[in-house]
Amino acid sequence: MQERFVRILIKYGLGDGAAGRCAEIFTNSSVDGIYTHGVNRFPRFIQYIREGYVKVDAVPTLENKCGGIEQWNGHLGPGITNALDSTDQVMRLARQHGIGCVALRNTNHWMRGGSYGWQAAKAGFVFIGWTNTIANMPAWGARDARLGNNPLVIALPYQREAIVLDMAMSQFSYGSLELAALKKEQLPVFGGRDTDGELTKDPGSVLQSNSPLPIGFWKGAGLSLLLDLLATILSAGLSTHEITAEKVERALSQVFIAIDLTRIGNQSALAGTIGRILEDYHQSIPLNASKKIVYPGEKVLLTRQHNLANGIPVLKNIWEQILAF
Amino acid sequence: MQERFVRILIKYGLGDGAAGRCAEIFTNSSVDGIYTHGVNRFPRFIQYIREGYVKVDAVPTLENKCGGIEQWNGHLGPGITNALDSTDQVMRLARQHGIGCVALRNTNHWMRGGSYGWQAAKAGFVFIGWTNTIANMPAWGARDARLGNNPLVIALPYQREAIVLDMAMSQFSYGSLELAALKKEQLPVFGGRDTDGELTKDPGSVLQSNSPLPIGFWKGAGLSLLLDLLATILSAGLSTHEITAEKVERALSQVFIAIDLTRIGNQSALAGTIGRILEDYHQSIPLNASKKIVYPGEKVLLTRQHNLANGIPVLKNIWEQILAF
Repeated sequence: MQERFVRILIKYGLGDGAAGRCAEIFTNSSVDGIYTHGVNRFPRFIQYIREGYVKVDAVPTLENKCGGIEQWNGHLGPGITNALDSTDQVMRLARQHGIGCVALRNTNHWMRGGSYGWQAAKAGFVFIGWTNTIANMPAWGARDARLGNNPLVIALPYQREAIVLDMAMSQFSYGSLELAALKKEQLPVFGGRDTDGELTKDPGSVLQSNSPLPIGFWKGAGLSLLLDLLATILSAGLSTHEITAEKVERALSQVFIAIDLTRIGNQSALAGTIGRILEDYHQSIPLNASKKIVYPGEKVLLTRQHNLANGIPVLKNIWEQILAF
Repeated sequence: MQERFVRILIKYGLGDGAAGRCAEIFTNSSVDGIYTHGVNRFPRFIQYIREGYVKVDAVPTLENKCGGIEQWNGHLGPGITNALDSTDQVMRLARQHGIGCVALRNTNHWMRGGSYGWQAAKAGFVFIGWTNTIANMPAWGARDARLGNNPLVIALPYQREAIVLDMAMSQFSYGSLELAALKKEQLPVFGGRDTDGELTKDPGSVLQSNSPLPIGFWKGAGLSLLLDLLATILSAGLSTHEITAEKVERALSQVFIAIDLTRIGNQSALAGTIGRILEDYHQSIPLNASKKIVYPGEKVLLTRQHNLANGIPVLKNIWEQILAF
């Protein structure tokens, strides 16, 4: 998969280095089971290059620097390479200042946000990062979508892996709503509103009304607004309403914060502390005895192991689209 | 109210300065309408002093410093003064480094977390802070409470005021569950599980089972775990499971992050950017025409204005308890 991605990306104009890095992220996301932002998303990425939305030869530039904070301009380059670079830069800042912040404007969709959490956490850093998006979710009590679902990533190192929370502010992603609608399945909890404004578990109704539900109702809507406000002012980039006015989800604003844990304490003591917290967490009494209580990122490790051993499951029509590029 | 609080706090051993600062926070929270963490909470604070859980003469000490990060020990002093001091310290770090982080261990309940968001934002800083708590919420799919509701505060300056998100990871606070149960009202959305493990809107059932619902179901549970992990390792303090083992909610761990916006860009340009985002947000079409769509902190300003003009409404039995101290 990765070799195929590299060849296609080079064909569409990415340099060897950028093609390799993008291909690796798309492939690793698929290995980890995040197909919606891995292999399934690859065709749309190529389409965005074709349409000129993603500038294949853009190089991010440092626009402003102040101690542990840097503002970068992504010049509409690939979201993946811009985010990988920003994560590298924020780790450099954290090594210097203990804590660092990179705010990135004019970038593109970073695909699976968790990628950058894994990147930083596996290098020994705490990572807090988020992106804004095009408007795709109503404010609490509203009918029309004016908020983004603005995914938030929080990660920390654990043993040789990481604990990675990667969550959008909507209860369900559009990808999972579409999948449930396709399978004619109801959602396990309310996923949004129907065209009458009533809460519903029917994924098709949510898609029709463009009204996915924020996590925690009014709370996730508030958090989403704050994440957009911070991404916009820290990066001096576009906010959700400005991206939405352009009709295409591009020129996004993102924030990357890292903390260098090697400057904070003894690494094996930290791992011991984390281990004891997880041990207590795993002692939770499950409501359903057959279901294990897992921490964010725990299932990913199992999927990764399984897919590395057995291959990545791929939808036939998606793979055919990819072979046709 | 503030004068009465000062006199009582001095009587119970706080120095003049600390008494004044605590009284001001308790009073301002009440003026802002956050009665649960203002006047209604004051008697329990005095009880905690009496029981020796809060050490009235403790002075926080700097334990470790590395660039823009500092670890402080609160020595079980009043949560309010420890958090006010930590917010002052993190603003100092942010002035030096652009971004700063203070991690505080061995502190006590900070009461209304939003207080510190207002404090930093009104001084021109972005603020991101959180606290862990005693276990009071089950992991997703679990029956027993092993997570804290770990309130998260995000704030930024706006005009001469602030936009402040102050949200616990549970859909409803214990305070609002108790109030709804008292009034025999059902919750507007699911608030937790009953003793059979079924989702319910009945506040009494949630209280009985000690199973409040995380915001966004599995998502808020994951976020809560990550906030506890970070607070614990960054502060070298106690985690939720260790606090829970002590049976009393004390010796908490907290994180304060600040970003100095004066180093990032022109302040009136930033205010313009924020204003345009809020303007778009306010153009949302309400589901219920009589209900205005508000941003986090917007209602607080109205309540503040109202209570400053008309006085703070106080429950008779609470005020009688206070007069009896």
